Amino acid sequence: MEGLMRCWREFLPILAPHTRHHCRHHHRLVDRSKRLALSQFFHPMNLQEEMVSGLETKPGDLTCRSQRLMLKAGLIYPSSPGCYSYMPFTVRAMEKLIKVIDREMQAIGGLKINMPSISSAELWRKSERWDLMGKELFRLADRHSKEYCLGPTHEEMVTDMIACQGSLSYRQLPLLLYQITRKFRDEPKPRFGLLRSREFYMKDMYTFDVSEEDAYLTYNMVCDAYSSLFQDLGLEVVKVQADTGNIGGKMSHEFQIPATIGEDRLLVCSSCRFAANVEAISSGQKECPQCQGTLSETKGIEVGHTFYLGTKYSSVFNASYMNNQNKPAVADMGCYGLGVTRILAAAIEVLSTESSIRWPRLIAPFQVCLIPPKKGSKEETASVQIEKLYDDMMEILPLMKGETILDDRTHLTIGKRLNDANKMGYPYVVIAGKKALEKSPQFEVWCQNTGEVWFLTKEGVIDLLRSVEVV
Amino acid sequence: MEGLMRCWREFLPILAPHTRHHCRHHHRLVDRSKRLALSQFFHPMNLQEEMVSGLETKPGDLTCRSQRLMLKAGLIYPSSPGCYSYMPFTVRAMEKLIKVIDREMQAIGGLKINMPSISSAELWRKSERWDLMGKELFRLADRHSKEYCLGPTHEEMVTDMIACQGSLSYRQLPLLLYQITRKFRDEPKPRFGLLRSREFYMKDMYTFDVSEEDAYLTYNMVCDAYSSLFQDLGLEVVKVQADTGNIGGKMSHEFQIPATIGEDRLLVCSSCRFAANVEAISSGQKECPQCQGTLSETKGIEVGHTFYLGTKYSSVFNASYMNNQNKPAVADMGCYGLGVTRILAAAIEVLSTESSIRWPRLIAPFQVCLIPPKKGSKEETASVQIEKLYDDMMEILPLMKGETILDDRTHLTIGKRLNDANKMGYPYVVIAGKKALEKSPQFEVWCQNTGEVWFLTKEGVIDLLRSVEVV
Repeated sequence: MEGLMRCWREFLPILAPHTRHHCRHHHRLVDRSKRLALSQFFHPMNLQEEMVSGLETKPGDLTCRSQRLMLKAGLIYPSSPGCYSYMPFTVRAMEKLIKVIDREMQAIGGLKINMPSISSAELWRKSERWDLMGKELFRLADRHSKEYCLGPTHEEMVTDMIACQGSLSYRQLPLLLYQITRKFRDEPKPRFGLLRSREFYMKDMYTFDVSEEDAYLTYNMVCDAYSSLFQDLGLEVVKVQADTGNIGGKMSHEFQIPATIGEDRLLVCSSCRFAANVEAISSGQKECPQCQGTLSETKGIEVGHTFYLGTKYSSVFNASYMNNQNKPAVADMGCYGLGVTRILAAAIEVLSTESSIRWPRLIAPFQVCLIPPKKGSKEETASVQIEKLYDDMMEILPLMKGETILDDRTHLTIGKRLNDANKMGYPYVVIAGKKALEKSPQFEVWCQNTGEVWFLTKEGVIDLLRSVEVV
Repeated sequence: MEGLMRCWREFLPILAPHTRHHCRHHHRLVDRSKRLALSQFFHPMNLQEEMVSGLETKPGDLTCRSQRLMLKAGLIYPSSPGCYSYMPFTVRAMEKLIKVIDREMQAIGGLKINMPSISSAELWRKSERWDLMGKELFRLADRHSKEYCLGPTHEEMVTDMIACQGSLSYRQLPLLLYQITRKFRDEPKPRFGLLRSREFYMKDMYTFDVSEEDAYLTYNMVCDAYSSLFQDLGLEVVKVQADTGNIGGKMSHEFQIPATIGEDRLLVCSSCRFAANVEAISSGQKECPQCQGTLSETKGIEVGHTFYLGTKYSSVFNASYMNNQNKPAVADMGCYGLGVTRILAAAIEVLSTESSIRWPRLIAPFQVCLIPPKKGSKEETASVQIEKLYDDMMEILPLMKGETILDDRTHLTIGKRLNDANKMGYPYVVIAGKKALEKSPQFEVWCQNTGEVWFLTKEGVIDLLRSVEVV
């Protein structure tokens, strides 16, 4: 190994012997590692429509606000129809969303597992869904011609796994197993960016109870956790009666975010809280089945779906436990999905303006963007003030470490960068302009989610940010 | 919705109207949500060989220590050949490992992205790897008969993405993009559990530099970060010269964990630091090419692999940037892999004893296991002491929240549970036995990684755990 090093040095005489420390500081990118700088990030450095890749290539695909905004901001990159690469800002938002979901799922006793994507055809034949799923299932064969599919959902796999746990006792139930993994669906027309893609992240939970009665309790507990999650995110969601589709089972609800772009048609009662997907009630119904009030139609984006399954799968796979008489009994199941990447896009869809992204504050990729003055401008010396603010913030508010980004593209005017920051939707934008040069320096603070603008001292900024919740 | 609720209630008269609070406390599982209890977890409650699922079904597959131990402890569950479900303890360890990897990658300026698994055949034909990869590639077609593969690696996809960023400037380089996602490889003989599976997690990084010289600096920087990572994990790793295989490029190294079960044959010099995979040097070579010392053969598990690629992919896909003369130039690339799930298994392979799992301390699923006395035993009243310890620990050491688990299977003796705790490999096991009843109560503390046993007061235990690093 040493020898190999020596050998390079012969070819590359400029290279001084280096240590890790040297390496870390040699590169321009790494130079700034102490402060998080925008120029370090891989996304369009200039949010002008004509500069954005992906936009010009497939204009027909740009069918909704979230897709257009996410492509423009370089948050996603299309790799093939319905398959997107998620860029660094999107990964940050998604990791935060996953943390919030974990918190809610674990608060009700959910245990996180991780099942393979490759799912044996045998399992799907046993549940009779191999044919039922039709063209939606991505199918493949291995080198031994054994058939598999890419799991769009995992009822079969998880139920089979429970069936193989010979020693499961009633004392261990209810069991709430969930995973947050990539799912696959061969959509006939992938569209709307992350709203209807062929490869996406889903949180899927599977529950096992000793009785129908207990399973209903679990069902309601999970539904409540879903409501709590959307409340945390500040997203308005309607829980509607739903069709059970090819998942099956006896009862089902969808969590829908009302949106004109939504692909689901909902009927909502104007008098009581009744709401249903049109698929779930008899066609042409105009009267609320609960209070005889008028039903009005609206559209929604489905972000969650819950199913009470009963023993539909557990009886097929013989997923049983030993009951309190030490006799085997079939478990009562439920399954519960949340569209993780879909929630990201749906939030952008309903919170954003025509030209500017707005995130649920809790999961914004960064909470704060600091804008120092333009190089060579009259305010240039104020850059010291904002660097001091950055460093003090990191010390006083350690939670904001990694949440604060410096827009170091100082060849651009403050106005241009404020415009970009507005488009990217940082909850807080802090500018060092003229007032930062005054005797008692003040920063211009834009609170993007409320549209308010304040002038605050360094201490004032830090106080304001003290209340920001970071996951 | 309300109506539906009412409707259930008719069928289930026992159900009182409930709130979220009620729900959370109705279930046995959720009752104990304040303290993390072992009985909440989904893994074998009795670590006896004959009780463990998966063991009896495919005895021929049990070919190494880590696979056997992980199956016995219910850490993994085989779903189809080479495809495993990861159970809650494993997910915890993996999430910690991912945090440690993120930390190292971000310290050198790595930006985390997430690319699709489904990869278009076009991309692979362009790089001429569609045929080259042969049967190792899982291939599939969508409903329009368009061909795809499941990405075992992403050189093509990431290079194509960079090629489409028209406006990339030399100022933005080096660019270090990485992802931690599931990869797929149709192994002819999947074996050794997570050491050679068909579906696995990999960290793959792709770097883009302005010149060969800079690319070598980046190469060394990433190698140093890998060395640092394995040092953090306390794993002995040898960096060896390696063959470039079907990834290609001009230079390559592997990071190998020496292990008798390892599938790679390494030649290590006894005099200098030279080491190489036998595939990388001329066959039959017995003499070190650096110092003429003797080469001795050993076996290793490959946990990392680095490649200097030059312009092999960037020239094919035309991944270019604007140089400092504002002229387009082809980027110089490197790619760098870490086997995430393989590192987990390899660590268990080399750290464990024949019957007991040992984790790298930093990524152990839980840091501490508390064992209260047996129900009905003479020491039963000491359970108050250990619950007090638990609660005080949570208050004084908030980082240990979620890291401390109570083995509440109090129908079992302390000895039986200590035996299980030993097998599961918690770094610290704290027992409330006879000495916890004394006037100045003492706990028996087993430090599993060093084999030491102490008797400590509550304050002593808390002091000891103060130094535990939690990621």
